[in-house]
Amino acid sequence: MKKGEVLYKGKAKSLYRTGDPGVLLVEFRDDITAFDGQKKDVLSSKGRLNAQVSAFLFRLLERKGIATHFIDMPDESHMLVKALDMIPLEVIVRNIAAGSLVRQYPFREGTVLEPPVIVIDYKDDSRHDPMLNDDLIIALGILTPDDLAMIKEMALRVNSVLREFFASLGITLVDFKIEFGRTPDGKILLGDEISMDSMRLWDMSTGKSLDKDVYRFSKGDVMEAYNRVAERVCAEDKEVCK
Amino acid sequence: MKKGEVLYKGKAKSLYRTGDPGVLLVEFRDDITAFDGQKKDVLSSKGRLNAQVSAFLFRLLERKGIATHFIDMPDESHMLVKALDMIPLEVIVRNIAAGSLVRQYPFREGTVLEPPVIVIDYKDDSRHDPMLNDDLIIALGILTPDDLAMIKEMALRVNSVLREFFASLGITLVDFKIEFGRTPDGKILLGDEISMDSMRLWDMSTGKSLDKDVYRFSKGDVMEAYNRVAERVCAEDKEVCK
Repeated sequence: MKKGEVLYKGKAKSLYRTGDPGVLLVEFRDDITAFDGQKKDVLSSKGRLNAQVSAFLFRLLERKGIATHFIDMPDESHMLVKALDMIPLEVIVRNIAAGSLVRQYPFREGTVLEPPVIVIDYKDDSRHDPMLNDDLIIALGILTPDDLAMIKEMALRVNSVLREFFASLGITLVDFKIEFGRTPDGKILLGDEISMDSMRLWDMSTGKSLDKDVYRFSKGDVMEAYNRVAERVCAEDKEVCK
Repeated sequence: MKKGEVLYKGKAKSLYRTGDPGVLLVEFRDDITAFDGQKKDVLSSKGRLNAQVSAFLFRLLERKGIATHFIDMPDESHMLVKALDMIPLEVIVRNIAAGSLVRQYPFREGTVLEPPVIVIDYKDDSRHDPMLNDDLIIALGILTPDDLAMIKEMALRVNSVLREFFASLGITLVDFKIEFGRTPDGKILLGDEISMDSMRLWDMSTGKSLDKDVYRFSKGDVMEAYNRVAERVCAEDKEVCK
């Protein structure tokens, strides 16, 4: 499929048109950023590893009955996806207190959150992605109450599938961020990516971070952490990581 | 009733023990602050006007079947209230987009919010009162899901009563902040105050602010605005403003 004009260039991914208006090509770049873009680097192979893990997880979720934008991987750092009208929300599901939750509220890091906590931010860099609540999401006309309930339910189902899968690899899924979009006929699908950039993952045996926190807080070799996740994921599915 | 030791001194009110452990005395002081305490002043009569309006509104709400901490006014700037274990939440009900809502989200000032929007902040000066959502309120153990639903319902009932009352005075109730607490036997009551410090009020004929925004944004004579509200409220009930 041909790589057409760039539609959008984000902090770590670029979106291209293809010959088919219903299909887009996502390029996972080697760029990595943190703290609202204040910290930036380029890390060789990072795009490939995130693309492979993301593709694996979208396939896994599809098998579990969750509708995603994923179509195929034409090569190791690109993904073909259904074109979506993205909903400007970052839906964050938290199983364990960490990160901004611990900085902003009196949760102790590592506290298990049962049931999991959903936090939804308004995706708007110029406003620094402010947090929303249900009333605000509806008042802003972003979602109807029914669609909001459906998205939260989908987010919890994604959480159940991913948490169980990572546990089987000896990895704790601490939290993750997902995004949703609408197809031209109004169906809501899981979009964006699910990668080491968008999940917080802790090694069950060592407690060490295997995600972007290694980069954010200079905790060691980021690519070693990303590789460790990709290796364990790829052991499950040689096809995606060939 | 005797004024015992100071239990708590807030930015604009002080709380004293009385001879009765179930009863506290609230002093409405003439202090006024804004922007997380960065702007501070003392305005003569401000305490009295806020106490009188607050007492009037608590009585009005009681008559409408909403349980509050209000007992009586021993003098024009003090209020006797039931001692409550305060719930550390600021419950904000918004009928019209203004203030932080307009600064943080793409709402145009003056947009009618129908249904009204409830925003709940975590009352913690050291954390700058961060916003919460339902999941966080429950995960932090602040409220059970049932108590949260009840508090939201109470907040909307308070809004209906206050909105209708102020409309009858030619004043638009834009938004307001209320707080709740628990009696020793676990009943949740409306506590704190409802005054020109905690409501956003716009004169229906001129559109001018009649609340703390006059002070916050140096829009004119604060005490003239506070007096205008108190005069209209007192015309309804000579007793409270004698």
